[in-house]
Amino acid sequence: MDRPVHRVSMGDPWSRQVHPDIASERYTQSFDVERLTNILDGGAQNTTLRRKVESIIHGDPVFNLKDNYFMSQNERYEASIQKKFHIQKLAERLGWLEDSRELHYASRTLSGDLALGLHHIFVKALRSLGSDEQIAKWAPLCNKFQIIATYAQTELGHGTYLQGLETEATYDADTQEFVLHSPSITAIKWWPGDLGRSATHALVQAQLMCSGARRGMHAFIVPIRSLQDHTPLPGITVGDIGPKMDFEQTDNGFLRLDHVRVPRENMLSRFAQVLPDGTYIKLGTPQSNYLSMVVTRVELLLGEITPLLQKACVIAIRYSVIRRQSQLRPSGPEAKVLDYQTQQQKLFPQLATAYAFHFLANNLLEFFHRSYSAILNRDFSLLPELHALSSGAKAMVADFCTQGAELCRRACGGHGYSKLSGLPSLVTRVTASCTYEGENTVLYLQTARFLIKSYLQAQASPGSTLQKSFPQSVAYLTAPDLARCPAHRAADFLHPELYTRAWAHVAVRLIQDSVHHLQTLQQSGAEQHEAWNQTTVIHLQAAKAHCYYVTVKSFTEALEKLANEPAIQQALKRLCDLYALHGILSNAGDFLHDGFLSGAQVDMVRTAYLDLLRLIRKDAISLTDAFDFTDQCLNSALGCYDGNVYERLFHWAQKSPTNTQGNPAYEKYIRPLLQSWRPKL
Amino acid sequence: MDRPVHRVSMGDPWSRQVHPDIASERYTQSFDVERLTNILDGGAQNTTLRRKVESIIHGDPVFNLKDNYFMSQNERYEASIQKKFHIQKLAERLGWLEDSRELHYASRTLSGDLALGLHHIFVKALRSLGSDEQIAKWAPLCNKFQIIATYAQTELGHGTYLQGLETEATYDADTQEFVLHSPSITAIKWWPGDLGRSATHALVQAQLMCSGARRGMHAFIVPIRSLQDHTPLPGITVGDIGPKMDFEQTDNGFLRLDHVRVPRENMLSRFAQVLPDGTYIKLGTPQSNYLSMVVTRVELLLGEITPLLQKACVIAIRYSVIRRQSQLRPSGPEAKVLDYQTQQQKLFPQLATAYAFHFLANNLLEFFHRSYSAILNRDFSLLPELHALSSGAKAMVADFCTQGAELCRRACGGHGYSKLSGLPSLVTRVTASCTYEGENTVLYLQTARFLIKSYLQAQASPGSTLQKSFPQSVAYLTAPDLARCPAHRAADFLHPELYTRAWAHVAVRLIQDSVHHLQTLQQSGAEQHEAWNQTTVIHLQAAKAHCYYVTVKSFTEALEKLANEPAIQQALKRLCDLYALHGILSNAGDFLHDGFLSGAQVDMVRTAYLDLLRLIRKDAISLTDAFDFTDQCLNSALGCYDGNVYERLFHWAQKSPTNTQGNPAYEKYIRPLLQSWRPKL
Repeated sequence: MDRPVHRVSMGDPWSRQVHPDIASERYTQSFDVERLTNILDGGAQNTTLRRKVESIIHGDPVFNLKDNYFMSQNERYEASIQKKFHIQKLAERLGWLEDSRELHYASRTLSGDLALGLHHIFVKALRSLGSDEQIAKWAPLCNKFQIIATYAQTELGHGTYLQGLETEATYDADTQEFVLHSPSITAIKWWPGDLGRSATHALVQAQLMCSGARRGMHAFIVPIRSLQDHTPLPGITVGDIGPKMDFEQTDNGFLRLDHVRVPRENMLSRFAQVLPDGTYIKLGTPQSNYLSMVVTRVELLLGEITPLLQKACVIAIRYSVIRRQSQLRPSGPEAKVLDYQTQQQKLFPQLATAYAFHFLANNLLEFFHRSYSAILNRDFSLLPELHALSSGAKAMVADFCTQGAELCRRACGGHGYSKLSGLPSLVTRVTASCTYEGENTVLYLQTARFLIKSYLQAQASPGSTLQKSFPQSVAYLTAPDLARCPAHRAADFLHPELYTRAWAHVAVRLIQDSVHHLQTLQQSGAEQHEAWNQTTVIHLQAAKAHCYYVTVKSFTEALEKLANEPAIQQALKRLCDLYALHGILSNAGDFLHDGFLSGAQVDMVRTAYLDLLRLIRKDAISLTDAFDFTDQCLNSALGCYDGNVYERLFHWAQKSPTNTQGNPAYEKYIRPLLQSWRPKL
Repeated sequence: MDRPVHRVSMGDPWSRQVHPDIASERYTQSFDVERLTNILDGGAQNTTLRRKVESIIHGDPVFNLKDNYFMSQNERYEASIQKKFHIQKLAERLGWLEDSRELHYASRTLSGDLALGLHHIFVKALRSLGSDEQIAKWAPLCNKFQIIATYAQTELGHGTYLQGLETEATYDADTQEFVLHSPSITAIKWWPGDLGRSATHALVQAQLMCSGARRGMHAFIVPIRSLQDHTPLPGITVGDIGPKMDFEQTDNGFLRLDHVRVPRENMLSRFAQVLPDGTYIKLGTPQSNYLSMVVTRVELLLGEITPLLQKACVIAIRYSVIRRQSQLRPSGPEAKVLDYQTQQQKLFPQLATAYAFHFLANNLLEFFHRSYSAILNRDFSLLPELHALSSGAKAMVADFCTQGAELCRRACGGHGYSKLSGLPSLVTRVTASCTYEGENTVLYLQTARFLIKSYLQAQASPGSTLQKSFPQSVAYLTAPDLARCPAHRAADFLHPELYTRAWAHVAVRLIQDSVHHLQTLQQSGAEQHEAWNQTTVIHLQAAKAHCYYVTVKSFTEALEKLANEPAIQQALKRLCDLYALHGILSNAGDFLHDGFLSGAQVDMVRTAYLDLLRLIRKDAISLTDAFDFTDQCLNSALGCYDGNVYERLFHWAQKSPTNTQGNPAYEKYIRPLLQSWRPKL
């Protein structure tokens, strides 16, 4: 059997042979794996380009990730700075442009293990909030790394609620400077990446005070470290926030400002200006800044969060055809653990989710670009929907990927607890996504507000006139609803239209419920804010059901486009079915609540679901191979393409510092302990 | 306000003042917190003793845990060996006996951050499997630490399924020795604690071969390191398995045996002997070994797993009255995040669970002792129930505590991601409990087998004769069942009898379902093993419902015993109600499936549940204070008794090695990067 060279490249002698238990899985493939890889890459030419970049990166020992699990936080930081330095040279030499596909693939290959990521966020913010002169001045400095910049928003005591930020920027008309100041301990900037030990400049979000009034949040470019020797500038206290659950390669930092002065020109002034005399002029609202936040969120789904779940699936599923445990038949050999129904039930819903989110994120990206074009034509009508979709999708994807990666990890038993499996770092990394770029609960509630508004709008003007301008993702609010699911047997639940409508039904009912409770409380005299707070748990439920519906719908639409690839379409349809039905079973109460499904129908769903597990079993390895992660990028002793799990674990463990750095505890404590009771000679 | 001295002792100047936002929570307490602490401790005298031990431990700088978050794996190991060495001296000096309450409290105070825990497992196994002569020989060596022992069972390729273990012990009658050998890479012992760098002896579980036949697993005492210089003995390859998700203080190890010879006397021989000529004699079945496994599992619930969730609750709830975010009322101050319904919904079910498991574990321990007494009287009838209860409880407690601790962590937003919060290590530690001492899925299925058997037994002989001998925990299988829940309004769901019966109803239905599907498959011709495998997902559901029922029941029974403490009883009853109703809402489908609850009734449950959140809010800080963890033991910048969250985070962060060990990356990469574009002078 042909093994694509880019996959097997760890170079160890025992990895020349593919383990027979995984080789046998690849003998009979129900579809062309390479073709599915091309589809996931968005075209065969992308696959080719990606592999070219991968082979360049993997060819250079500086980019090796192998020792990551053995490094301290300081060592990880230094290595990621080194990689960044190195890749800048490489990009220069090979002509890879900023934001190019090549650099994107390089970052994927390195699992994002590169320093100075915030530098690019700074540039984005500069381009969207800065005046033309400001961009002309600062952008070239950034592009040539004559400065290293970060973006400082979050404070020790303030995160999500931007109005609560305390950092102050007071305009001093006498000197034409802003005085940046942290008025309290809670005002210290906290968490910005690259701030702790690297950045020379920070874009500081602060409350502008000028002409005796508070003007709200504005952005200021503040030099924080000497360009000569990197020491903190006067008035600056800066450092690293210390150990974290993951992201050890990043120097998240703190920044305390003690009356630090910057020139008037350092306030980004595309949308607001302070004149020399302190007059404040507003020049519009920064829609484009908002859009850059949305696109960051959407790109995160595709570039960071979903791949972490995909990798976890690859590792856990490959390991599960090597690992054997107990007998399925008396006196038979020990069975592959993937042949157990409980193992399938742990892993396949995660695999289905990983595919579902790939298509969801692509869909969202398309929708973003459509909205963006409209906005360039001054049509802002898609903005609320874009906001609701991207918020809800980020929350759901982060939630499910975190849960899913942890399930994959646990499905690998004890070895999933070893860092050498690669799984612990996937889990501790993906779980951060539930918090960064908008805390999940807050985001879900943003979506809920949109749903309630849309529902009331649909109620206020029913009929066909509405349908045209009504946001597409909630069009189901205006569609005729079924009161009862028409399914008669398990197989009926394999019709995408049937389960998509079932999800729409539940979403509608929960949104109704949400509106009903909110209105009832308000009518009984509760203040608006209080009524909202006392019903948020109910709104969350509605938002989650809506997001699930959107994912199911986008998956089914993606399938329709694969009519020319029947074998791939069939394999993916099973995952789509599984995703939809797994969700129904996990939330059966929502479907049974008003009798939309009967108990007997829920049992049919379960039957269909268990059958799907058996069918997906045959394609499991092909479906994970199709993600086409290189062994180096997975960096997992359990998940390599060749299946040589136990040799790799054994060899990797021996390189651990726990084995190579001696054992001073022996002389100090163990020997005295062992000998303390010896008769004194 | 009086602050108990044992709680505030971090010694920093800013911690002399309790933060007003947490002080105000303690002004009006609805019950006597100290009294609840006494109840949790099992009596006021225990509280006193515990605090005495705590003050001894905290008074000694060797036992400080403060730098844990800044240490490498090697440093953590060395520190935990040092602590073990130190505590042995201390115990000797103070006369604390092995297995004494004092040593137990000392370990709790140190959050188990002590090396050589497996040494005690070795001794337990020796006492239960060894002959009297063997115990007389080896136990004193262990007690005086003349040897350091570990227990080596799990192999690289084999865990849960003991029959699959490959390590061989072949008897050589010529020399009267056993030859211990690892015949393959998968046979290497893997994971045993204290094996990697510390142990001098291992109790090795191996397949006994004598007189030409395989005799199954037996235990052998194998010297592995020189008592002179700690080097591995001939034929031994031993080392550390490398970095893990947590438990960095423990040197989990590997052990490869290459025809290692030990004398015939080194096979533990209480239940089986090999005579000099190789004759194999069986002397009974090691019930007591099995019992020691059960008691380990139960003690783990109380001593290790549940406290991890309790600590996570303390940290997250304390932080949530300090952290403020957004406004609940327009133009009001920012609100404490604990006043948001969504935050209550995240944290209070975890707090309820933490209490529920405390009572469950105590109940189980009592049941264990009752069974043990019976067994001493040769009555083995309680054994199957004990096995089912302890298996299911371990699986559920590990599952829920892991999920709950992670929810607490996430509820602390960004700061919950900092190791200084203490939460990441609680989460990464508790998640190991889902795998060790029996993988959760496997354990749940053990419970399911017992449930199916009990159900069939109840069906076979209905009526009152059965009831007497029928296992108490499944007595509901023989009780009259309600077809419909009689609740009319939300308040009805606050009756313990009502929700306990609801849980019993669902458990019965799911067990029936389980039996029905198994039998149907068997009747349609499926082989027994295959039928079992194809229905395991269904059995899991039944086992989980049963375990939930058992917990609800044990919580309500514990409440009944608190009639003399009405204020405490009331506060705890709310948690019990919340635990029961949270479970109903999370599994609403199971209650709606056969119409036991109607949709309207589920809505009543939700109403009752949301009301409970509001009521528990008032007692939240008292209920967490009552666990009485010292600040040093919590080791959390967010969770200290005084609420000085931000000062502590800021001060701790500055001590991080990322701030104290310089920045070599600057000279090597950052400076060259910044200056690479400078015009050459």
